[in-house]
Amino acid sequence: MTGDTGPTLGETGEWGLLAALHRRLPQGPGVEIGPGDDAAVVVAPDGRSVVTVDLLVDGVHFRRDWATPHDIGIRAAAASLADVAAMGARPTALVVGLAAPPDLPTAWALRLADGIRDEAATVGASLVGGDVSASSQLVLSVTALGDLQGRRAVTRAGAQVGDRVAVAGRLGWAAAGLAVLRRGFGSPRALVDAYRRPQPPYTAGVRAAAAGATAMCDVSDGLLADLGHLATASGVGVDIWAHRLDPAEPLLALAAAYGREPLPWMLTGGDDHALVATFPPDGSLPEGFRVVGAVVAREPDRAEEALVTVDGRLWAGSGTGHEHYR
Amino acid sequence: MTGDTGPTLGETGEWGLLAALHRRLPQGPGVEIGPGDDAAVVVAPDGRSVVTVDLLVDGVHFRRDWATPHDIGIRAAAASLADVAAMGARPTALVVGLAAPPDLPTAWALRLADGIRDEAATVGASLVGGDVSASSQLVLSVTALGDLQGRRAVTRAGAQVGDRVAVAGRLGWAAAGLAVLRRGFGSPRALVDAYRRPQPPYTAGVRAAAAGATAMCDVSDGLLADLGHLATASGVGVDIWAHRLDPAEPLLALAAAYGREPLPWMLTGGDDHALVATFPPDGSLPEGFRVVGAVVAREPDRAEEALVTVDGRLWAGSGTGHEHYR
Repeated sequence: MTGDTGPTLGETGEWGLLAALHRRLPQGPGVEIGPGDDAAVVVAPDGRSVVTVDLLVDGVHFRRDWATPHDIGIRAAAASLADVAAMGARPTALVVGLAAPPDLPTAWALRLADGIRDEAATVGASLVGGDVSASSQLVLSVTALGDLQGRRAVTRAGAQVGDRVAVAGRLGWAAAGLAVLRRGFGSPRALVDAYRRPQPPYTAGVRAAAAGATAMCDVSDGLLADLGHLATASGVGVDIWAHRLDPAEPLLALAAAYGREPLPWMLTGGDDHALVATFPPDGSLPEGFRVVGAVVAREPDRAEEALVTVDGRLWAGSGTGHEHYR
Repeated sequence: MTGDTGPTLGETGEWGLLAALHRRLPQGPGVEIGPGDDAAVVVAPDGRSVVTVDLLVDGVHFRRDWATPHDIGIRAAAASLADVAAMGARPTALVVGLAAPPDLPTAWALRLADGIRDEAATVGASLVGGDVSASSQLVLSVTALGDLQGRRAVTRAGAQVGDRVAVAGRLGWAAAGLAVLRRGFGSPRALVDAYRRPQPPYTAGVRAAAAGATAMCDVSDGLLADLGHLATASGVGVDIWAHRLDPAEPLLALAAAYGREPLPWMLTGGDDHALVATFPPDGSLPEGFRVVGAVVAREPDRAEEALVTVDGRLWAGSGTGHEHYR
C-alpha cells in the first residue's frame, strides 16, 4: 500500500525489526520456546509433526496495491494452514521467512506479521519464529506445523472407485475476486474480500479424517488440477457433476455482469483453499462437506490432466488450474 | 554456474520439476509421509519438535558464480541444521521453498536439491517436502525440524556469571574464504571450500546439551554479534580471550599475504556455523569444545553491542558482525 510513513527496514535494521516482531507475537499453550532463539520448540502431542511450506512472491501470488499487508499476511498463513488441515491435522505453529527490500516500510512488515499471527490464532496456532533477509523482490515463506491427534494422516493416495467426492469451503470466489481486481475494480466486495482474505474450512479437515475420508487435499491449484493430483496418487479417475457445484449468488451475478459462465472460476480457481476429500459410498458426510462427484475407474494410458472429467467429459475450458512456470 | 544445458524451469514446469525432485529424495526411518502430498509427517519421538527457518537470497547470501548449486544447497541446509544443533537437538527433517526465475536451468535446481539432501543426510535428516514458485530473484527458504531426545532445550538465556565460554567448530575460515572470492581468486582452496561447504559441528550441540551447557547459539552473524545476542538474553556480559582463539595455519597464512590480522575474521565471520556455548566453571568440556572466554557481570546501561569485550576491552574492529539492512 502507498502512503506508509515511518522508518523503512533499512532504517530499522534486522535486529530492530526482529525485536519489534517478537513483542507482537503472543505464544499459545503448545509452544515451549517461542521467537528469539536459534529455533522454537513446539509440542507434538502424538509423537509426530505435520510440516509443510508455501511461498508467496510479490507480483506472483499477491500485489501490494491490491491488498493491505494484514490481508497478505492472512492469505500467506491460510495457504500453509490449509495444507495442514488437508492432512486431517490441527495446525499448531508457523515459522516465517521474509525476504524484503530495504525500502519497505517497517510498519508494512509488522502489519504483515500481524495478519499471519491473526490467521494462525483463528485455529489456535502460534507464529513461533522466523528469519528476515534483504532482497530486491519481496518473498514470503510460511512453514506450518500440525498435530494429527493420534489419527492416521489422510493423504492423496487412498481414493477408491465408488467413493463420493465432496468439497468443504468456497470454490471460485477468490478467482472471481481476482478477475474483478484485474479489471481495476474493488467490488463486488464479497468476492474481492474472498480473494484478499480467504476462509479455508480448517476444522473440516479434522472432521473428514475422523469420518474416514479415504483421500484429501486442499484446492490451491484449482479443483480440476488438485483432483488430478489426487487421482494420480490414488490410481483412479474422478468425475465431477457440474450441477452439484451450485454457484453462489455473487458468482452468478458477476458472471452475468461479465457475460461469462461461473463454472471456470469454480473448476480452476485455487485461492479459496477449499478442501476436497473422498469418502466411502455409504454413511453420512461430516458437517460442511457437499458431494460434487464420484471416484471412477482410471482409464488406461490417460495423462494426469485427463484423469478428471466433468459430467463424463474432459473439461474444455481455459486450462485446468495454476502451475508455476506455465 | 554458466554452461548449463538442458531445459529451464520454464520448459520443465512446476509439476515436472516436483516429480523430478521427488525421485531424488530417499526418506529416512523417521519420515512417515515424505514429499508429494499437501504436507509431510515426521516423527517427534519425545512429543516436541524443534523448528527453525533460514532464508538464502541470491546476491546476498550466495553468488551463483562463486559456488556450484550442490555447494549452495549444502550451505543452505547447514544454516538451518546448525540452528537445530544449537538448541541441543538432533535434526530430523527439512522442508524447502525455492522461488526462482523461469530461465533457471532445471538441472541447477535439481543439483541444489541434491546438495540440501546430501548435507541433511550427514546428520540422518531427510528432505521431506517443499514448494516452488516463479520469481525474478532466486530465494531459498530452508526449514529444519529437530528432536530434543527428551532433553531440555538449550536456549541463549541461561548463561551465568563465572561460566566458561567455549566454541566448537571453525571460526573465521568462511569469512577468509569470502575475502579470497571477493578479490577474484579461488585459492587457498581450504578457505574457499570452507566458505562454499561449511562443516558445522552438528553433533557437538547434542554433546553440549548432555554435558549441561547453560546457554548456546550458533555463530551465524559473527562470534561477537552472536555472543551479544546470548549476553542480552542471559542478562550477562562476555569477555573473549584473544589468545585462546588461536588462528589456524590457513588463516595466519592468508592474513600475512593480505597484510592484515586474522582476528577480525574470527570475531565477525559467521558462515562457518560454529557453536558457542557456556558451561559451569567446573567439570570437563564435551569433545570438540575449547574455552575462549568467560561470562562476566553485565555492566549497567550497556547496549547489546557493548556486552561482549575482547580481553576486557570493546572491540574496535570493523563492525561486530552481519546484520541485514545495515
